[in-house]
Amino acid sequence: MDLTSPNPSLSGEPADAKRGGMTDPSRPEARSPRGFIDRRARDLAAERAILRAVSAVYERYGFEALETPAFEYADALGKFLPDADRPNEGVFALQDDDEQWMALRYDLTAPLARFAAQNWETLPKPFRRYAFGPVWRNEKPGPGRYREFVQCDADTVGSARPEADAEIIAMAAEGLVAAGVPDGAAILKINSRKLLNGLMASAGVADESQKLAVLRAVDKLDRLGPDGVRLLLGEGRLDESGAFTKGAGLNAAAAERVLAFTAAGAGRGETLSQLSNAIGGSPEGDEGVRDLEAIDRALISLGVGPDRAIFDPSVVRGLEYYTGAVFEAELLLGTTDEKGLPVRFGSVGGGGRYDDLVARFTGERVPATGFSFGVSRLAAALRAAGRQGLEARGPVVVIAFDQSHMADYFAIAGEMRAAGIPAEVYLGASGMKAQMKYADRRLSPAAVIVGEDEFAAGTVTVKDLDLGRALSRGVTDNAAWRAERPGQATVPRADLVTTIRAILDAGA
Amino acid sequence: MDLTSPNPSLSGEPADAKRGGMTDPSRPEARSPRGFIDRRARDLAAERAILRAVSAVYERYGFEALETPAFEYADALGKFLPDADRPNEGVFALQDDDEQWMALRYDLTAPLARFAAQNWETLPKPFRRYAFGPVWRNEKPGPGRYREFVQCDADTVGSARPEADAEIIAMAAEGLVAAGVPDGAAILKINSRKLLNGLMASAGVADESQKLAVLRAVDKLDRLGPDGVRLLLGEGRLDESGAFTKGAGLNAAAAERVLAFTAAGAGRGETLSQLSNAIGGSPEGDEGVRDLEAIDRALISLGVGPDRAIFDPSVVRGLEYYTGAVFEAELLLGTTDEKGLPVRFGSVGGGGRYDDLVARFTGERVPATGFSFGVSRLAAALRAAGRQGLEARGPVVVIAFDQSHMADYFAIAGEMRAAGIPAEVYLGASGMKAQMKYADRRLSPAAVIVGEDEFAAGTVTVKDLDLGRALSRGVTDNAAWRAERPGQATVPRADLVTTIRAILDAGA
Repeated sequence: MDLTSPNPSLSGEPADAKRGGMTDPSRPEARSPRGFIDRRARDLAAERAILRAVSAVYERYGFEALETPAFEYADALGKFLPDADRPNEGVFALQDDDEQWMALRYDLTAPLARFAAQNWETLPKPFRRYAFGPVWRNEKPGPGRYREFVQCDADTVGSARPEADAEIIAMAAEGLVAAGVPDGAAILKINSRKLLNGLMASAGVADESQKLAVLRAVDKLDRLGPDGVRLLLGEGRLDESGAFTKGAGLNAAAAERVLAFTAAGAGRGETLSQLSNAIGGSPEGDEGVRDLEAIDRALISLGVGPDRAIFDPSVVRGLEYYTGAVFEAELLLGTTDEKGLPVRFGSVGGGGRYDDLVARFTGERVPATGFSFGVSRLAAALRAAGRQGLEARGPVVVIAFDQSHMADYFAIAGEMRAAGIPAEVYLGASGMKAQMKYADRRLSPAAVIVGEDEFAAGTVTVKDLDLGRALSRGVTDNAAWRAERPGQATVPRADLVTTIRAILDAGA
Repeated sequence: MDLTSPNPSLSGEPADAKRGGMTDPSRPEARSPRGFIDRRARDLAAERAILRAVSAVYERYGFEALETPAFEYADALGKFLPDADRPNEGVFALQDDDEQWMALRYDLTAPLARFAAQNWETLPKPFRRYAFGPVWRNEKPGPGRYREFVQCDADTVGSARPEADAEIIAMAAEGLVAAGVPDGAAILKINSRKLLNGLMASAGVADESQKLAVLRAVDKLDRLGPDGVRLLLGEGRLDESGAFTKGAGLNAAAAERVLAFTAAGAGRGETLSQLSNAIGGSPEGDEGVRDLEAIDRALISLGVGPDRAIFDPSVVRGLEYYTGAVFEAELLLGTTDEKGLPVRFGSVGGGGRYDDLVARFTGERVPATGFSFGVSRLAAALRAAGRQGLEARGPVVVIAFDQSHMADYFAIAGEMRAAGIPAEVYLGASGMKAQMKYADRRLSPAAVIVGEDEFAAGTVTVKDLDLGRALSRGVTDNAAWRAERPGQATVPRADLVTTIRAILDAGA
């Protein structure tokens, strides 16, 4: 029995599904904006644990913290959203009182490029920073698809070495484990845009927009399968809804070459030699193979084996700014939704090498590589998989049993807090029964009751709510165990903290 | 000698002071928007330590975490900014694609009121939540005055008890100590709007807007002194710039009464009896005195003495939504600015009882009380006072001495990371000298150098950069100690971690 209060806005439906029922037009309706949600303790526990764990990994690798503002000037932000079909949409923008357009960041990479360009002269180089925080996308919300979510990134700016890519991959792999993903339940997939560029050059693709169309087509391999992607590589594809997506316009032979390349098996050493054969001849493709070979060597010395990171030619990443290696973290956890149906979580993060973002500002090419965890997404996946045991425990509740003893109750709560145990005195206006119900709904481990008898005897009565909840889950005949009042004990006041500790330890 | 890279945007000037010098009109200029700043490791260390410490206090008191979105519908947010002279400004607002106006939250209280109203039926009551995060104000930026800053709040919604106020005050006092403010260097000042309302009723103030004008006038006591406030209570005041602020329009006798009230000494028991005399007769004033008496009793049982919290009749808080007790945390730390001039920090947080915010939505009055820390402000104050010793330490840097040994260098860095020591292999393209400089600028405790000799002998050379920096600060004849190469030792490879630990411990 889950006694936490059910918050409708956490059920995965967008908040606006709950609208209506407004009665007084003079009063505003209490609702969060479309596509934005409130998150309570149990949601935040998983997310905060991930941020703590991943940040610790980043710091151990020598990355320093940076926080840039929520806003950037729109021109500095650029238009690098994955869905660039609507290039002027996707961000929340407004005009400042000096008429300049500002927009909320849609990721943490664009602000980093701006920061690095702005401070390049004085930064230690390579500049290695990590960052986390909300990003905003002005998109149509849907189930599980919000317009505000949390990312956690690490980037190295100013190193062209493939080892810098390898390190980013190693951190991502280590971050997943630190975040609570069991060994073997996630995999980092690596590819290189240089290979793809080489392939496309030899397939006769020269034009940048055609190249991007090919990349976007391959990026849909997971969702549409080879047949769907074949259509998108060629003339185009009509989806179930009747909407037509224009294709990249490759001829059939070129499309087959691209598909054959992406179908090469995923692995490490063996995949590399296969790719080498598939690309052989194109200078950029050869460079891509050499990069991946160097990444492979560095991954080995970093202790990242093929069980945690593999080369996968089907990974391309939708963003147009990548210039070399690209990475994607895929969650293999078998999770089920509320109805018990299997959920494929897929990607929980990605990144790659982007050597031109700083040059947008300075004109000087600055090599850079990085990775971004979709923290909200990873937290949701781990929660769904039951991998985050972090329950939002409530405080011990000292029952306001006798109004004339409030000062004593505060002293009792203070004693527990001093011992590091979260505790509170009930401060509502309700009676005993409602107070016990309150403690239960807060998931309190225990309630402390002290009345005249206890004060006279120098004792306190401790009700073990953890045990009560456990029993109520396991025992069908509620009335029976309730009658026995299990888990309630009157102990000397001096034993209060040890008694509570025993309950907490038993529940841990 | 501070070897961290000087980041211009951290110097306290708004970022736009650095503009100009744009050379290529086809390229965007790299700059953060007006009034928004980037924060690097050393800034974040203080802020994150405060958030950790204060959150821990809130959790110990039984408050649960809540995060609401950055956006609220504008009508839900309401207009409760302290500076309500421009009631339609102050927030960053934009129109959603369904034409509804959304605005970024300007504090954490208004979103809580919306959340509580939306979920009231299903929440455990009283609902006790804490929250932290950025808030945004669309105001004119200035030195040290930003348009995005971090707050950290705790609120109890659904308890009319003065004990709930006392608990909020106790947490604020405890939070200050936990955040690193030395005992005695901060004080919580408490007052009650009911006292002020009682006073104003007896002074003939009936109209709400006149009442608000009186409150705003008294709120400026700190800045303008009694003479300035007297003008604002009366006809109005002409400031140095020649701008005229319209006054509250009290007659001279009423203005004197208000001033006399605010001048009653600040303390606990004695102040209460003085206030009681000053107000005596007005029912609302008497109620205010009774509330403060109950707060006093609860504070005593919570262990908060007059050294940490006092009643001060001059505290009113500018916000119009307060209905009862009001609190303000004042920092007494003597700090100096970059030029060594004394800086008065004043308020680092405030709050109070607001019983009508939830009723805005539901029509039902819900008693509530809370406190908000200005985290960015408190962090700045503690840094300025040198009270936050949290330097942003860099990682141990493994020098990329011999390119053919990169794999070994990664293994060495991995060994340190596994021991919990932040470490990295230098991944730039520069030579030894630049690499050592890089390590120094990162504030690395040590650099590790391994060349052919060391590989052959099974050793590593460790350079103690902490010691080097200490010497360079204390020794004027740099050349002399440089010649002796102090703090450089070649040790067996197996002793690497212990050697680094010794350096870290010495620097701690």
